[in-house]
Amino acid sequence: MAKIQFSKGVNEEVIPKVSLTRSRDGNSGTATFYFENPEALANASTGDVTGMYLVDEEGELVTREVKAKFINGQPAALEATYLMKSKQEWDRFMRFMERYAEENELGFNKA
Amino acid sequence: MAKIQFSKGVNEEVIPKVSLTRSRDGNSGTATFYFENPEALANASTGDVTGMYLVDEEGELVTREVKAKFINGQPAALEATYLMKSKQEWDRFMRFMERYAEENELGFNKA
Repeated sequence: MAKIQFSKGVNEEVIPKVSLTRSRDGNSGTATFYFENPEALANASTGDVTGMYLVDEEGELVTREVKAKFINGQPAALEATYLMKSKQEWDRFMRFMERYAEENELGFNKA
Repeated sequence: MAKIQFSKGVNEEVIPKVSLTRSRDGNSGTATFYFENPEALANASTGDVTGMYLVDEEGELVTREVKAKFINGQPAALEATYLMKSKQEWDRFMRFMERYAEENELGFNKA
């Protein structure tokens, strides 16, 4: 089980593109999630987006760094940034991503 | 350091698309690498492709399951399949992929 939520308890079913960067020493990194037309924007007011929650059997990771991209005055995409500040945080995040990738048939690709 | 080679010692610089599948119990899986116009085909006869070698600081993973795709009679792409038969093999492969993804700015995407 690995789910992404923008409001607690509400699974986002649109699959993001995820790009990764990592510092040379491996001790910090950034994951950027890009969702085109996510359900979180279609179903509710954007006020309901309280963060991005990455939920799996180990627990929950959360970031408050979520921005909406507007096209013609309408929110059309969500971009969320998740920061990792240690090797432990990177490894924990990658365990989530492996589970999420597996459930949603993601692979590794050039962004 | 994480490199892919089709002939021992010769790094392939074209970046593949990598799709992953994993069995429900997590004990086996398949990674499929797709290279469009790889250097391995441009630089040499296809007879030099002896397998796909995944090389990093832990050592080398190898598969002999490499096929060339022909377009208009010319080899135009290489598809390699790497099988994992245990959780240990999956974890080892993912450590390679994390390193390779990091060096080449790969992210997770729908194939």
